[in-house]
This record gives sequence, structure tokens and C-alpha cells, in this order.
Amino acid sequence: MPNLRLISGAVTAPQRFRAAGVTAGIKPSGSPDLALVVSDAPATAAGVFTTNRVQAAPVVVSREHLAAGRARAIVCNSGNANCFTGSQGLANARRMAAVAAEALGVAPQEVLVASTGVIGVPLPIERIDAGIVAAAAALSPDGGPAAARAIMTTDTRPKQIAVAIPTPEGEIRIGGIAKGVGMIAPAMATMLAFLTTDAGVASEPLQALLAEVVERSFNAITVDGDTSTNDTVFLLANGASGVTLGPGSAAWEAFAAGLVQVCQSLARELVRDGEGATKLIEVRVTGARTEAEARQAAHAIANSPLVKTAFFGNDPNWGRIVMAAGKSGADLAPERLRLAIAGVPVVRDGEPLPFDRDAVRAAMCRPETDLELDLGVGQASATVWTCDLTYDYVRINAEYTT
Amino acid sequence: MPNLRLISGAVTAPQRFRAAGVTAGIKPSGSPDLALVVSDAPATAAGVFTTNRVQAAPVVVSREHLAAGRARAIVCNSGNANCFTGSQGLANARRMAAVAAEALGVAPQEVLVASTGVIGVPLPIERIDAGIVAAAAALSPDGGPAAARAIMTTDTRPKQIAVAIPTPEGEIRIGGIAKGVGMIAPAMATMLAFLTTDAGVASEPLQALLAEVVERSFNAITVDGDTSTNDTVFLLANGASGVTLGPGSAAWEAFAAGLVQVCQSLARELVRDGEGATKLIEVRVTGARTEAEARQAAHAIANSPLVKTAFFGNDPNWGRIVMAAGKSGADLAPERLRLAIAGVPVVRDGEPLPFDRDAVRAAMCRPETDLELDLGVGQASATVWTCDLTYDYVRINAEYTT
Repeated sequence: MPNLRLISGAVTAPQRFRAAGVTAGIKPSGSPDLALVVSDAPATAAGVFTTNRVQAAPVVVSREHLAAGRARAIVCNSGNANCFTGSQGLANARRMAAVAAEALGVAPQEVLVASTGVIGVPLPIERIDAGIVAAAAALSPDGGPAAARAIMTTDTRPKQIAVAIPTPEGEIRIGGIAKGVGMIAPAMATMLAFLTTDAGVASEPLQALLAEVVERSFNAITVDGDTSTNDTVFLLANGASGVTLGPGSAAWEAFAAGLVQVCQSLARELVRDGEGATKLIEVRVTGARTEAEARQAAHAIANSPLVKTAFFGNDPNWGRIVMAAGKSGADLAPERLRLAIAGVPVVRDGEPLPFDRDAVRAAMCRPETDLELDLGVGQASATVWTCDLTYDYVRINAEYTT
Repeated sequence: MPNLRLISGAVTAPQRFRAAGVTAGIKPSGSPDLALVVSDAPATAAGVFTTNRVQAAPVVVSREHLAAGRARAIVCNSGNANCFTGSQGLANARRMAAVAAEALGVAPQEVLVASTGVIGVPLPIERIDAGIVAAAAALSPDGGPAAARAIMTTDTRPKQIAVAIPTPEGEIRIGGIAKGVGMIAPAMATMLAFLTTDAGVASEPLQALLAEVVERSFNAITVDGDTSTNDTVFLLANGASGVTLGPGSAAWEAFAAGLVQVCQSLARELVRDGEGATKLIEVRVTGARTEAEARQAAHAIANSPLVKTAFFGNDPNWGRIVMAAGKSGADLAPERLRLAIAGVPVVRDGEPLPFDRDAVRAAMCRPETDLELDLGVGQASATVWTCDLTYDYVRINAEYTT
């Protein structure tokens, strides 16, 4: 991606997007808790949702609204997940869309809805109504960072990025904001990511591309292996750059590559801010029979409490990594396994190698470290990002009082 | 099981079994590290092994020896797992069987082998040879408890049980020892269980019964969701009671029920001694479409770090339990879910119930607590036992230095 350029502005970096983040009074802390992201031009829209069988009301409503493949706005509250709230919860999610639609002069079906926070508690809907009206009044072409702050729950910092991508047909921009630090509950902290672009893209290829990119970014991270009931990724494309893209062109490839970069960057930020995490760990599995098996083995390693605690302790404990791959169900050849931790080979052709333990421990201390395991049975590979499992993870999740 | 009676003696409680536990010098600590369990009469034998794709040498050898469905002895060392040790490891496992066979005057194919401890390190085979000879000399009809101690690694206490079961055809006995406290590595702590009975049972029904019972006991527990490369359960039946059993009889049913009780008791002991655990948690899932789905949901709950930390914190955090069931892939009806924590209903028909939070917290403080989740879609159920996730789990696994 040599020509891709980082720019400021998050979701409002692309042309003709405005956003706002306001305090509606949902969070007891008084922190911003209502975000609005709006396209001033009609936009195509794509969405990817949680695979949890329990789905929050805003997920149900947004799925319906996305059916037409178009949207003008995203309204999101933090501090309350509107999940396990029955038919009233569904009515409230629809009302959020309707109130936003009226404030913006668009159709309710053009508004996507997301919520994150405590579950099983009815939304304080009057406050949210007022918050949406206030957010609509506060919309600004510089409002991206404010929206990023307003969707936070237990995040310690907002996650945002924007890039400018030159294409043969002109420059396009992609912006994104995200939140989520683990599946803490009752917050059930929910992974949310909202993406905007001023490229023009038809809704079908947009949806297909988003699904594919999510697989390699937000679905390739894990803090604790849990899946929230509210996880949502939205992408709005309004064409305001004047560049219209479709699969097959060089410009499309540049757009797709840029979207991967934006999503992977946000995804890595989520892991880096994982509950109690002291480091980001990149898990690369190579030599798998299929990409699905590579992903399966990488996720088994990335979710193993034994591997995660070993990284917390800077312990190059290769036995745990091999064990986790072995239990994953992915095909592997024990006698051809190769493993490197923090770049240092520790197993080759299934045999433990002598290695400088202190050097590896020092390399594992860094805020970003990695491992690479070759399963020895094919050519497929996958990368997953995880964080270490620490005392602070236990403290945060054991002491969180309902 | 009204007539079942607890007796002492562990694996040597059944007639014509002897055992020993000695120090062969494999563990630096000088603790006992070599166990021998012997039937003085020919016995049928059954075994269940790890499903990990990486399998230790003793697993490979014992599988071969079990092919004939008969065995006279089990030899087991702790302190070294003989895993990831290549062709030398395989030769060493065969040698352990051969040395034991010679000392006992039986065929090498009649000896089952197990190992547990560090991986990737060659066995100190001369010490093991001498240890086996010493153990054979020390065999005693009261040696069961000594054998239970000699198979421990990081266990804080030996796990053993024996029961006497009256049947219409006479009394039979079942004894068992087990070890394992998590998948700590490089110890990769391995779950081992050795069972003996003086009932006479043909090898085919014995194997079928053992596989079924393991599913409801050792496969129904989880400390950290990891699966060792060495996990092994053996059952030897020597008929010395004079009672010969086969499927269909009342005596068989009594035997099967007794075996379930022995295995569940040992399995619960393993969880209770789980690394850093402060409590045993029984997870019951009911109302599932199939037993497999019930098990799937129960395991997802039992392995969720968020559920496990909530129990450590005595936090009746029902959202995490519902979330874990939702991500498991098991079918469920959100609007019909029922959940009770420590016996107190907290969700009914998908709606959170008001409940006395302090009373539930107090009940969760007990060393044994439970939850019951009804998925609302069928009649199938499953029970899984797990422990809480604590600071000590992180300490033990992060500070274990390779």
C-alpha cells in the first residue's frame, strides 16, 4: 500500500460526512454517550453483525433497514445495550431510528441503529430522544473524533483512523471509528465499528467486500473468545469523491486494500486496549491444508488461557502453543512442525531447538510480539491478533459489580 | 445408588489387584514419580485417549497394546510426559512396557503405559528402568494410595476412590486414581485416570461402557478448555469377585452406575484441585434440542473466561452466561430462556427477574455452587463441571518458568 496516506478526521474525513458525539445522560459518569454519523448525500450501506444466537434489538432493526442496501445515518448510544429487553427494546430501537430520521429529514429505514452497554435494562428513551436531537444540531464535518469518544464504554481511549487513497480515477477516502475491549458484562462490551467512504460503490459488491474484510480484521482478533450480542460493523459509501468503483478495476483493488488496512488498524487497536492487556500478540499460522484450518488453529492458540498467560509471563513456552494447535482440529504433521516465538525458531521438523531463552524473553516483553507456527501439511495461512491474559483481566472481570 | 458403599484402597480395593508408588528420581523434588498397578489375574482392559492431534509416545504404545482388549498392568511415570520426543520417545515407551513385563512375568503387550510431566525432554530411561523394578518389588494389596501419589504433578493432593457394589450375583468393587489440575505446560499437566474392578466383563462391552462413562465424567469437566497430548483413562476388569457381567442384567446396571459414580467423583476432584480454583461450579443445561447441543452450550459456559471470573467475584452476572450459551451454536429460544444461579431464578421466559443479589452472592461464595440454564427448545440436558478463573490461575501459569 505505498500510496495510502493517513489523514485526520476519522469517519468525517471522507467528503460529505458529518458526525457528532453528545452527552445524553445514559452513562452515570456524564461522559458522551450518543453518536450520530450522517452522510449528506445518499449512500449505499453494508453491515456485518454478531453470530451470537441472542441478538440485541438494534441488531434486529438494523438488519431490516439494511435490506435495501442504502442508509443516510448511523445513530448509536453507549451505556445501555438494549439487549434482553423484549418487545419494548425493539420498539425503542425503532424509535431511535425514527427520531434520528425526523431530525435529519430522511426516512427511518435509512437510519442504522447500534447500542452498547449494560444489558437487561430498558433504554432511558426520553433522554435518548433529546440526545439524538442535540446530536443532529451538533453535526459537524469535524465531528468524527467526537463520535469515536461517544461510542466508548470501558475503552481507555477512542479508536479512529482515516486514509486517503489515490486511484487512477481520483482520490478516495475511508474513515473509521470502533470500540470494544472484551466481552465484559453486563456491559457485554460489544465490538462496534462504523466506516465511511466517499467512493461510490453499489451495495452488493460493498456488502461482499465488507464481509470478506471483516473476516481478516475484526473476526481475526480475540480478547477472551467471547462474542457479544451487539457486535456490528457498518460501512456507508456516498460517492461524494466522484469516483465510482466496481470489482475488477485497479481503483477497486486500491479501495479494498485500503479498507483492509483501516479495519486491521482498528482491530489491532481494540486488542491493544483489551481488558488488562499488556501486549498485542500476532499469531501467524502457515503450512495449513486450508485457510479455514489455518484460522481454526490460529484462533485455538489465540484463545488458549495457557498461551495467553505464558505471554504475560514472557515465557517462551512452546509446548502450550503446539498443544493448542493440536486440539484445534486442524490437520498438522507433528514431525514437520516449525515454530518461532518473537522471531526466534524454537521447534523445527517437530524437534525442540536449543535457543537463547533470555533473548526470547526480552523480545516477548515488547508491547507487540508474535509467533509463527507452520503446521507442515499445506500452503494456507491465517493471522489472528490477541492479547495476554493478566491479573488485571481477572480483576476487571471479577470485580465488575452488577 | 442406595446400596453403593465407599471403601478405602483406591485401585487396590478390588480383589487381586496390587499397586506401588516409588521415587525413581525423575522429579527434581524427590517426590514419588513411578506407579505400577497390577492385576494378579488375567484382565480385560479398556482405554480412552486424548483427541489432541499431537499424541505422546505412551498414548501410541498403549493404543497398540489395548488392541487385544486385555492387560495385566499399568506403568506410569510422572515428571516427564515423553511427548515430542520422536522415535527415541516411542522406543522408550515400549521399553517401559518391556521392563515392567519382565519384572512381572507377563507379555509386554499386556502392559499399558502412561507418562505425565515436562514435554520435549527425553526420558531418563535408566532411572525409569530401575524405578519399575523397584516398584514391582514394592507391589502391595494396599498400594493404591501410594500409586495415586506417584502419578501427581502439580496436583496439591492425590485423587482416589473405591466403592463396593452389591449385585444379585454378589459384591463387586471398583477402584480409581486420577491426576491433573489444568493443562499447565511444559508439564501440559495431562489428565490420567486408572480404574480397576474385580467384576468380570468382556472387553467389548467394557470398552463401550468406559467410552460412554468418560463422556459423562472426565469429558464433562474443564479447567481451562485445553486438552493435553497425554490424556488417558484405563479400566482393568479381572473377574476376581467371581461375578461376571454383561449388558442387560441388573448387575450390569449396578456396575455401570457405580462406574459413573467413581468417574464423576474423580472428575470433580480434578476440577476442585484446578489451578488457582477457589470453587467447583456445576453447569447444568436443560431444554436443549439434543444432548450434543446441551453439552455444547454447557461447555461454552464452563469455558467462558467471563463466566469463570464472574464466579470468582461472586457476581450473579447472568448476561455473561446467556451470552456464552448464545455463541455456542446450540439452538435456543431467547424468549423462553430460564436461568437460576446457585438455585435462585434470575431469568424467566427471557425476562430478567428481580432477585436478592446479596443472597445469591453469598450462595456463590460456597466451595460448590451451580447454575442451571433452560434453553427452551427441547428436552435434552447435560452437566459440566468447571472452576473459577482467579489471580492464582494467572500467577501459576504466567510464572511457571520453562
